[in-house]
Amino acid sequence: MFKSRRTLPGTPPATLTPLAPNEASLPVLRWMEYDADTLTEHSVASVAELPTSPGTDGKVHWIEFNGLGDLEALKALGEKYGLHPLALEDILHAGQRPKVEPYDNHLFIVALMVYRDGDDGRMIGEQVSMILGNGLLISIQEDPKCDVFEPIRQRIRSGGGWIRKMGPDYLTYALLDAIIDHCFPILEALGEALDELETEMLQRPSAGSVATLHDHRRTLVQLRRAIWPERDLINSLLHDEGTFITAPAKVFLRDCYDHTVRIMELIESYREISAGLLELYLSAVGMRTNEIMRVLTVISAFFIPLTFIVGVYGMNFDNKNGEHWLNMPELHSRYGYVSLWVFMLAVVAAMYLFFRRKRWL
Amino acid sequence: MFKSRRTLPGTPPATLTPLAPNEASLPVLRWMEYDADTLTEHSVASVAELPTSPGTDGKVHWIEFNGLGDLEALKALGEKYGLHPLALEDILHAGQRPKVEPYDNHLFIVALMVYRDGDDGRMIGEQVSMILGNGLLISIQEDPKCDVFEPIRQRIRSGGGWIRKMGPDYLTYALLDAIIDHCFPILEALGEALDELETEMLQRPSAGSVATLHDHRRTLVQLRRAIWPERDLINSLLHDEGTFITAPAKVFLRDCYDHTVRIMELIESYREISAGLLELYLSAVGMRTNEIMRVLTVISAFFIPLTFIVGVYGMNFDNKNGEHWLNMPELHSRYGYVSLWVFMLAVVAAMYLFFRRKRWL
Amino acid sequence: MFKSRRTLPGTPPATLTPLAPNEASLPVLRWMEYDADTLTEHSVASVAELPTSPGTDGKVHWIEFNGLGDLEALKALGEKYGLHPLALEDILHAGQRPKVEPYDNHLFIVALMVYRDGDDGRMIGEQVSMILGNGLLISIQEDPKCDVFEPIRQRIRSGGGWIRKMGPDYLTYALLDAIIDHCFPILEALGEALDELETEMLQRPSAGSVATLHDHRRTLVQLRRAIWPERDLINSLLHDEGTFITAPAKVFLRDCYDHTVRIMELIESYREISAGLLELYLSAVGMRTNEIMRVLTVISAFFIPLTFIVGVYGMNFDNKNGEHWLNMPELHSRYGYVSLWVFMLAVVAAMYLFFRRKRWL
Amino acid sequence: MFKSRRTLPGTPPATLTPLAPNEASLPVLRWMEYDADTLTEHSVASVAELPTSPGTDGKVHWIEFNGLGDLEALKALGEKYGLHPLALEDILHAGQRPKVEPYDNHLFIVALMVYRDGDDGRMIGEQVSMILGNGLLISIQEDPKCDVFEPIRQRIRSGGGWIRKMGPDYLTYALLDAIIDHCFPILEALGEALDELETEMLQRPSAGSVATLHDHRRTLVQLRRAIWPERDLINSLLHDEGTFITAPAKVFLRDCYDHTVRIMELIESYREISAGLLELYLSAVGMRTNEIMRVLTVISAFFIPLTFIVGVYGMNFDNKNGEHWLNMPELHSRYGYVSLWVFMLAVVAAMYLFFRRKRWL
Amino acid sequence: MFKSRRTLPGTPPATLTPLAPNEASLPVLRWMEYDADTLTEHSVASVAELPTSPGTDGKVHWIEFNGLGDLEALKALGEKYGLHPLALEDILHAGQRPKVEPYDNHLFIVALMVYRDGDDGRMIGEQVSMILGNGLLISIQEDPKCDVFEPIRQRIRSGGGWIRKMGPDYLTYALLDAIIDHCFPILEALGEALDELETEMLQRPSAGSVATLHDHRRTLVQLRRAIWPERDLINSLLHDEGTFITAPAKVFLRDCYDHTVRIMELIESYREISAGLLELYLSAVGMRTNEIMRVLTVISAFFIPLTFIVGVYGMNFDNKNGEHWLNMPELHSRYGYVSLWVFMLAVVAAMYLFFRRKRWL
Repeated sequence: MFKSRRTLPGTPPATLTPLAPNEASLPVLRWMEYDADTLTEHSVASVAELPTSPGTDGKVHWIEFNGLGDLEALKALGEKYGLHPLALEDILHAGQRPKVEPYDNHLFIVALMVYRDGDDGRMIGEQVSMILGNGLLISIQEDPKCDVFEPIRQRIRSGGGWIRKMGPDYLTYALLDAIIDHCFPILEALGEALDELETEMLQRPSAGSVATLHDHRRTLVQLRRAIWPERDLINSLLHDEGTFITAPAKVFLRDCYDHTVRIMELIESYREISAGLLELYLSAVGMRTNEIMRVLTVISAFFIPLTFIVGVYGMNFDNKNGEHWLNMPELHSRYGYVSLWVFMLAVVAAMYLFFRRKRWL
Repeated sequence: MFKSRRTLPGTPPATLTPLAPNEASLPVLRWMEYDADTLTEHSVASVAELPTSPGTDGKVHWIEFNGLGDLEALKALGEKYGLHPLALEDILHAGQRPKVEPYDNHLFIVALMVYRDGDDGRMIGEQVSMILGNGLLISIQEDPKCDVFEPIRQRIRSGGGWIRKMGPDYLTYALLDAIIDHCFPILEALGEALDELETEMLQRPSAGSVATLHDHRRTLVQLRRAIWPERDLINSLLHDEGTFITAPAKVFLRDCYDHTVRIMELIESYREISAGLLELYLSAVGMRTNEIMRVLTVISAFFIPLTFIVGVYGMNFDNKNGEHWLNMPELHSRYGYVSLWVFMLAVVAAMYLFFRRKRWL
Repeated sequence: MFKSRRTLPGTPPATLTPLAPNEASLPVLRWMEYDADTLTEHSVASVAELPTSPGTDGKVHWIEFNGLGDLEALKALGEKYGLHPLALEDILHAGQRPKVEPYDNHLFIVALMVYRDGDDGRMIGEQVSMILGNGLLISIQEDPKCDVFEPIRQRIRSGGGWIRKMGPDYLTYALLDAIIDHCFPILEALGEALDELETEMLQRPSAGSVATLHDHRRTLVQLRRAIWPERDLINSLLHDEGTFITAPAKVFLRDCYDHTVRIMELIESYREISAGLLELYLSAVGMRTNEIMRVLTVISAFFIPLTFIVGVYGMNFDNKNGEHWLNMPELHSRYGYVSLWVFMLAVVAAMYLFFRRKRWL
Repeated sequence: MFKSRRTLPGTPPATLTPLAPNEASLPVLRWMEYDADTLTEHSVASVAELPTSPGTDGKVHWIEFNGLGDLEALKALGEKYGLHPLALEDILHAGQRPKVEPYDNHLFIVALMVYRDGDDGRMIGEQVSMILGNGLLISIQEDPKCDVFEPIRQRIRSGGGWIRKMGPDYLTYALLDAIIDHCFPILEALGEALDELETEMLQRPSAGSVATLHDHRRTLVQLRRAIWPERDLINSLLHDEGTFITAPAKVFLRDCYDHTVRIMELIESYREISAGLLELYLSAVGMRTNEIMRVLTVISAFFIPLTFIVGVYGMNFDNKNGEHWLNMPELHSRYGYVSLWVFMLAVVAAMYLFFRRKRWL
Repeated sequence: MFKSRRTLPGTPPATLTPLAPNEASLPVLRWMEYDADTLTEHSVASVAELPTSPGTDGKVHWIEFNGLGDLEALKALGEKYGLHPLALEDILHAGQRPKVEPYDNHLFIVALMVYRDGDDGRMIGEQVSMILGNGLLISIQEDPKCDVFEPIRQRIRSGGGWIRKMGPDYLTYALLDAIIDHCFPILEALGEALDELETEMLQRPSAGSVATLHDHRRTLVQLRRAIWPERDLINSLLHDEGTFITAPAKVFLRDCYDHTVRIMELIESYREISAGLLELYLSAVGMRTNEIMRVLTVISAFFIPLTFIVGVYGMNFDNKNGEHWLNMPELHSRYGYVSLWVFMLAVVAAMYLFFRRKRWL
């Protein structure tokens, strides 16, 4: 679900390898500049046009850098805002764990976003890196086509709520909150899928439903690997003693932290439920085999002895005119055939009673 | 079991969406005002009639706001008592984790109540929010029809015990204690259901009992998810260093904490027992299959060879007048038939002995 | 195993409901007063005769209050020695977790005692409450017939050892030690039962042994639930910084703590062993089914083809005087029967070799 | 594997019960007195001959007291060196957990030694108690015949290495190191046994190999129970702040600590491997059953329909001279028999194709 | 995967046993001396030629000592640079846990390197010991043929990046980073193998794939045992308060720490996935057995009754000219044979409907 890039073992740290052209898009830049009263959306074509000294005019600058296909632009961004080379490497090499790293003049945040593709409902994971500085938030994504932050831009444009009145730390919270809240619909869909699976397994257990269950469990393992460190990330921000996160924003981050805890609990309970489903399935299959066995046993048990009996009277022992009278005299008795049926019915009745007593019927 | 509401990802924090009319009832308000000597039960129609400055007259004001169907009334309540918008959102969006959040002039408490519906014994979970301020406790529930706090109102009316002599912190304890103690009858019922299930599984293992067991385990997972944070909630209150919880009330909260620990232990041991039940069931089914197999084997093993033997003497090899004397001369022997029976009985006896030695009979 | 009593949800805390007459016996009181030199065993009929101000004469007063059938007597005891109403409730409502609660003028201790009934070896659990004050130890039990403290009374009477020279804290230790040490014979019996079960499962796996195993596991779950908090209890006493537990008694409590740790380890390893036993059983059953299957397969595989062959020659195709010479000419050949036997033996031999190569024989 | 002795519940602490004569040997005493330059090996017959005030002459005194059969001698030892009665009880009652207990003038150490008997490779566990005082180390063992400390005596005699230059703390380390290092060959043997078992289970799964695996797992549970507290023991010595363990000896104890950690890791990975082996075995048995089933199915499926067909033509329906021409006219057709064979071959071919398509052949 | 050497129990600590000649190669020595501006690669034949007092000239000295076949050379190295005998023992005895041990004038680091052999893709584990002193890093490996540090030598030679500008602590980081990063390709290969195995198990479950899975799980257990302490190792270096690790190097070590955490998470999720695969396999096998059983049941159930019926009419009951008219009159009826077929078809149809209703067909 998540991409993972790495350098060859032995290459120096902070080596930036350009991505293959088909792997990444060219960056799309956006720059919003706002305070409680004013809002400017700049159209930006290159890194050079971005503000050189944000944080001095009391405004919030949100810079979006979406697309990792132009390594030079990324390096230029890094130089302009003084990013550490290791941070640049983490931005480029998708597959980092969510984390917060404090640097002198900014916080470097890596988060993992999970969302369902609108077209086919497929789950997609993407790394979102953020640099939170004075009056500045840079958010960096790999795929400009995936735009989950549009509602936040709308909130900024509408000017309502807290977002225009607060600083870049609140904006960071808003982005993280959007990322976290995207997990809820995914988990709800998963929960419904598990409920359907349960019904299916109880009624028509099939090998296919186990494979589906296995897929869901892999998804849960992956989600857990993404969300667990995200919880720690938000916890670190909550307990950050630097100046980047202010107390009013922490009230909101606490709310976001609650959401990650709820998501973790949902994931854990889905894991338990899916483990239980497997047991349910195995016992349903076992029960089914058991029932089929029972039917086979009963049919066989009834007919195998009878088949033997009729086989006996199919034998061709010679009894020429009663000469060898020991050879199957029953065959020549007047009531032989009728007696045989009576005997066979008695055998069936005895077996029936035996099976009833054993509770096999 | 528990409802869960959430906003769309990307909406601003503290967005209050009105609930659908069929989803929630109009709020029913109650206001009790008491101290050791006096008690007034006000009849209240709207939030405007509620006291504006409780906490100044040395009395305890218990305000019940049951029903979330009128968003404006909820907002008015929030404004009147200075509740944080995030707290209002948590009240409205059922499915929060039990928690305590300290605000400047009040503690905000979310608890989960679990009770069995009187009519059909179905388990229902509901979120109870409480605001504990100076001389004030506001309790907010979703469904006014579910009234588990009536015994507490009776205790206030009767004037006995501690409740009239102590402050709103003791009242908070009393509500929490009622919520927690409602879990005991549920767990006792569950314990009895598990005992019955054990008997059933040992005597008549069926696929249905596994489905029942699976249901009980889901219930346990859900109860555990509700009670575990409730224990932490009470622990937070116990170690609260603010002024809202006084030392005498803490003695009682410690007792309540003991109850949550006992409930957790009951839940854990029921989980262990239900895991053991599944193993018991699987082994019972395995044993049963085994026994059925054994019977099939034995019946088949006895009759299949015999059927072959009698089949041999059903063959029509031609032995015209002893001309082809090699063709089944047994058929024409005087003692052929009798010898065959002797031979077949010997085969049966040999197999019987073999199976006895193998302990299959 | 352990009784559990509770009030209805919503009743005030510290409500004391009288027990049903058939549920509890009338209290039997005992009062021993001793120091290193003197010993007085008072005969006491009611709470009023108990000492009013122990702790002033430098002697140790051990008061036993065995039997919870007289609620008034219990209340009188509570008033006389200043017990907190919540403590009285815990004494009456069996099923508390073992715990220590510090009050102003005494420590309140709840322990769980487990012992095997002498008559039928059944395990019985009972709650023992203790109040440790200055020069005073009150021990309260539910059933006066169960008397595991007689050896300790004998030690006091004999005057040897440390018991007469030390205070009520040592007496508390002695009671706790007696309670803890009663677990050893129970665990040894359980260990032997598990050993027997192992032998049985390896030789004659039956569904009954799984049910027995399940019982043992339930017992282990219950023992663990009792002993685990008992370890914490003793640890709390060891680290008690009040004046009730003196340093010399702590040396002995450390020894007692070691015993609880050993018991916990025994319980844990029995749990592991019993989990292993279940796996052993399941694999034994699987192996057995496998072996039975193999025999069935081999017998069927040998005889089913042979039965078909002899069936062929039992057909009545008409070959009037060789007219329809294509109809089963073998039947009229001189060596037909002999050749058939040769052929059938060849089939058997081929199958035998095939099965040997597959290691099924 | 380990002996376990205990007193009856209710007996006073530190009660020393003499062991049965056949249970324990008479003590064998050894006394080595050495420093860097001198070495004296005293021959000692009774406790009275042991040094009265070691620790005053700057020499190290190593006293071995091997054999617990003479309770009076043990008591004399305790009195001579001021051992606490509870320590004496722990020495006598085998089955203690490894631990360190600080007393005023000595450290009391209990360790568990595990070694393989030279004769039959059986694993034996024995408790070794040590008293580390000023210039003194007393080591106490139960069985004088088991002598794993001979290499250390040789090192003292040879005078090389550190042992003669350092104090009794180093000697303690040397004994503990010898005890710990004896686990390595045992674990290596266990590792090899598990490897063999794996091969066996993959090639010839049998019920016996599961029983062997179960034995190995019990051994691992027991070893873990012995080694885990031994690690804590050494850790306590490492962090001992008293004067008995000097800094130079701690460097060596750290090495010994590393060894216990390695042993714990080996034990844990063997536990994981053995859990995996059981799964491997169960799946191998399942696969085997599956294959046998398949063969049975195929043979039955081929021959059961054929047997029915030939049974049809074995029926004796009367067709006197074509009078009842509806009664099995095939029997009288010229090509009846040949057509039947063609039909049966067609049935076999169809089934063969069906089974191939289902991948059952 | 990893070698493990140890001394006999009872031998003195720090005993250095020479390795067998075929077990280890003669040491190959390398010595690089560099600072930001200069670089000298010395050719060194023996330990005597190594620098005597590094750390005084402000340069970094990297000494590689690859090959443990010459014990005297190792001892010479130890004497020259003041290594503790226990450290020398750890270098020689492969199989140590990764750890950091502080000595007075150096840090002693043991790491475990895992890499895939270029020729056959086999995984090889090797212990790398490092001594980090002032201006000095000694790295010691067992097998000179395995050279994973060549990229680092190239970076030193090229003079780019940080490596020439920083001290031996950065060089230590670079070696550790190369060791850690070698795990990524191994885990990727493992991940792909697990994906293939999943496909294989879903399509063609065979006993062989379980054995492969078992191998992968053993590999994961071993990797985990190597990487887990490596994480602690790097954490210790990060929190080292001595002078050997400088703050600039810690920034890089933090990055390396992130990598170990990612590797641990990969290992853990592969462990979960492989546990899930086993369950998947077991359920696939169970399903398959189930399906085969069903086919056998249906075929048997259809033909066994029919075979009995035709057996009945194969009996030779005598009905001489209608004399014994009770003996199978059906055989002589005109429509007997046709009626029988109609009856048999009715039986088949009834069973077909029954099986459909039961969902067995």
